[in-house]
Amino acid sequence: MSINHRVAEQAKQIAPGRRERRRAETREKLYRAAMRLFAEHGFFETTTEEITEAADVGQGTFFNYFPTKQHVLTVLSEKQFEKVMAAREEAVAGNASMEEVLHRLMHRIAEEPGRSRALTRSLMTALISSDAVRELVGCTMARGREVMSEIVTLGQKRGEIRDDRRPIEVAMAFQRSVIGTLLLWAMQVEGDLQAWLEATFRDFWASVHRERDAPST
Amino acid sequence: MSINHRVAEQAKQIAPGRRERRRAETREKLYRAAMRLFAEHGFFETTTEEITEAADVGQGTFFNYFPTKQHVLTVLSEKQFEKVMAAREEAVAGNASMEEVLHRLMHRIAEEPGRSRALTRSLMTALISSDAVRELVGCTMARGREVMSEIVTLGQKRGEIRDDRRPIEVAMAFQRSVIGTLLLWAMQVEGDLQAWLEATFRDFWASVHRERDAPST
Repeated sequence: MSINHRVAEQAKQIAPGRRERRRAETREKLYRAAMRLFAEHGFFETTTEEITEAADVGQGTFFNYFPTKQHVLTVLSEKQFEKVMAAREEAVAGNASMEEVLHRLMHRIAEEPGRSRALTRSLMTALISSDAVRELVGCTMARGREVMSEIVTLGQKRGEIRDDRRPIEVAMAFQRSVIGTLLLWAMQVEGDLQAWLEATFRDFWASVHRERDAPST
Repeated sequence: MSINHRVAEQAKQIAPGRRERRRAETREKLYRAAMRLFAEHGFFETTTEEITEAADVGQGTFFNYFPTKQHVLTVLSEKQFEKVMAAREEAVAGNASMEEVLHRLMHRIAEEPGRSRALTRSLMTALISSDAVRELVGCTMARGREVMSEIVTLGQKRGEIRDDRRPIEVAMAFQRSVIGTLLLWAMQVEGDLQAWLEATFRDFWASVHRERDAPST
């Protein structure tokens, strides 16, 4: 194989990588712009033209990346899933208690939708008004519960989480707590999300932690 | 006053009562029909004409009772509030434990939206797509928390609910638990709501009950 041939081969291998990277960047830009607009104006009030304009990409570009406006929000569920993966890494590393790992995760999961009540309501809208999006997000959330179950199993082995609960049920309780808090918050005119999340985590932890000297029944 | 005059007076007094009763009946009929159609076909897919037809009332009647389709769902929040009031009566009567009263209440609150996933999603839609409805329902839910706080205070006095929680926070935890469960359930393709509610109540109660011999910190 000549050097020229090899260089050409390498160029071919690099090119698709670069294209994919650029594609991922544009998708991320569209996602960011959409989230900002949904947070400011709401989901129904935002058009795909406004999204492409805010993202500074061609007007027809949007549908090369997302089949519908609702689909932008599946990106968020992927990002949420990555946060659960990061929490598992933290849990495996073992430098922090399970309480710290799960407490941090709850705040991190609420961070993005918690940017505004309008944004949380937009997320709910996407789930409701599109069967396809609901299926995608539902699937990602189910994967999230699987990974969280692994965290819980680890916590049970370490004696930090009560072992009379199935790990998947604890994972479900975690999701239910965050979603319930976000929805209640998005419905109200006032109320500080951070304070609410603290109360939510305290209650969640009270129901799943293993008591040290007096194991619960 | 002649007998005739008295009879006429009585008739006048009865007449408005009868009109109001009939009005309430028609409103209830429209509500029932709407809930059935929302549960079967979804909120967006149901027209007001279909609702009046199913309720067997005049086609133009709908808007004499509700300003918009979304407003039908405010009736549900009123009914939910009545269930909380009934629970307070049960709690005051003192024939059942707090655990039983709140357990029954959680199932009763979930009963109506739990008729179908499509119905739960319809409820969420009404909350999201109408500021007016969200305000009305949010207000009724806040009243519900007030009444529930009274139940919790009673439970604390009786030593059944831990007293290191503010009653309003326990009420908030209750609502968050039910809403979170319903939303998670409405998003999934499978999963038995009754079983999920049992797990939800168990977790809720684990976080708020007062432990008998070893008071929690």
